[in-house]
Amino acid sequence: MSVLIVGSTALDSIKTPKAENPRLLGGSASHAAVAASFFAPVKLIGVVGEDFPKKYVQLYKKHGIDLEGLQMVPGKTFQWSGEYEVNMNNRRTLATELGVFETFTPVLPPAQRSTPFVLLANIAPSLQSHVLDQMKRPKFVAADTMDLWLNIAMGDLLQLLKRIDLFVLNDSEARQLAQTDNVFVALKKIHQLGPRYVIIKKGEHGSILSSAAGLFIAPAYPLAKVIDPTGAGDSFVGGMMGYLTSAKGSVDSNLRRAMIYGAVAAAFCCEGFGVNRTTKIARADIEKRVKELEKMTKF
Amino acid sequence: MSVLIVGSTALDSIKTPKAENPRLLGGSASHAAVAASFFAPVKLIGVVGEDFPKKYVQLYKKHGIDLEGLQMVPGKTFQWSGEYEVNMNNRRTLATELGVFETFTPVLPPAQRSTPFVLLANIAPSLQSHVLDQMKRPKFVAADTMDLWLNIAMGDLLQLLKRIDLFVLNDSEARQLAQTDNVFVALKKIHQLGPRYVIIKKGEHGSILSSAAGLFIAPAYPLAKVIDPTGAGDSFVGGMMGYLTSAKGSVDSNLRRAMIYGAVAAAFCCEGFGVNRTTKIARADIEKRVKELEKMTKF
Repeated sequence: MSVLIVGSTALDSIKTPKAENPRLLGGSASHAAVAASFFAPVKLIGVVGEDFPKKYVQLYKKHGIDLEGLQMVPGKTFQWSGEYEVNMNNRRTLATELGVFETFTPVLPPAQRSTPFVLLANIAPSLQSHVLDQMKRPKFVAADTMDLWLNIAMGDLLQLLKRIDLFVLNDSEARQLAQTDNVFVALKKIHQLGPRYVIIKKGEHGSILSSAAGLFIAPAYPLAKVIDPTGAGDSFVGGMMGYLTSAKGSVDSNLRRAMIYGAVAAAFCCEGFGVNRTTKIARADIEKRVKELEKMTKF
Repeated sequence: MSVLIVGSTALDSIKTPKAENPRLLGGSASHAAVAASFFAPVKLIGVVGEDFPKKYVQLYKKHGIDLEGLQMVPGKTFQWSGEYEVNMNNRRTLATELGVFETFTPVLPPAQRSTPFVLLANIAPSLQSHVLDQMKRPKFVAADTMDLWLNIAMGDLLQLLKRIDLFVLNDSEARQLAQTDNVFVALKKIHQLGPRYVIIKKGEHGSILSSAAGLFIAPAYPLAKVIDPTGAGDSFVGGMMGYLTSAKGSVDSNLRRAMIYGAVAAAFCCEGFGVNRTTKIARADIEKRVKELEKMTKF
């Protein structure tokens, strides 16, 4: 089984109180694809410009990521720059240059249209829907989002929610979407919009899954040092969908453990700039932390 | 086995966006004692004035709480009034009248000086130490605190930390005490100040235990409706210490489960003003929610 991942592929410039790093490999699809690649074959759908460094193409390939659906077109790769405050929780965008992303239309290679697992990582919901239009009866579809789309593309997002199995969003987005302060009330309202499974990401406080089987409260992996949290949420959904794609049995019986794998992938992401740390680990490093989380949550 | 609980006994007036309730039974010791009473015999140490309603004495008695150490003296009972904002997370104090609390010195009845479990609920650390001065080799001592003491009585608090087994504080207090933004770094620093066990309370995000055995990440019990969070932290430590007092075996093997009982006690506390909800439940209601939390955290 393999997983198809669509999202943004970008060059990120990230400033923290301690360092500044230009032109890192970034974007929701890059983080998600690298995290998923530890578990299952990944097919990446995205777009980059002529300036996209060859070393990043090599990095994707090193992770066995299928690049047939990665368009390389004239123009500049999507660039984002942001800055973190001292506590690493508050981030502000310094600049966004869409480049080739502005006219991006995802096109799925024919051979990929029947991929069983689909992760619609964070991009405009109309593009996420456009990917689904090209798919043949996928087994399981998950979508991530961001506050921007709640502000400027709510109609598109509501259309998308009727077509997916799992919706992933963070706690402030959930409150905004459901117009309530309480995340458990929000979960119920979001189910009514379509998805059978809803996951609320709470960063360092873990995540919560809601489904017909009830709630699952998942921890975050504890980190004494956070270098750069950019892409942690994307790594979470990537790791989770990668594990889910690889696991035998029903989604219902695997999703909880998949979230733990996602939490570990997110933690590794936070320990380096861009994908610097995530691309230097092995599956065994992930397994070790999953076992640690098992110990840390048993009672 | 029984547990001795010292702390404040107060009359609280609490305003929320939806209601206002005057002269509720409140104070750290009241909330903790009621929560602990579901598990083990409780001996309450505190002070009230002549205006303390008889119905609250009856309420303590209904919970089998030993009041021999509750001083009833001329003057007014400690009164606190506060107001919650819409999201129920931000609270501001409207007024504090110390009354008889201003000159309170806890005095332990001789028969209570060898109580095995001791909970120093939130009061001035000098008073918490004064209770320990009167104890004969307790088996296990836990102390809670609040930001006020970090601001005005740090010396006293540091003295106390050398004499207790378990220190409980919330995440912002932990960051302040250890002067770091990272709670896991804070935990290490707080151990160096004395306590073998440290618990960081994170409200709706659960709690974290640190000990020689490693970390334990405990969930909060999910609530779709919070009526009044006042006393939730006190109920957490009360329920936890009550369970710990009643459980067979070592503290090490019982403390994780004790935190789950504490989380459930805290949730019930949030579902009513003052102790309104907590005093209307039975042990079976607690057990039901503990089982639910077991299901919600297994993977």
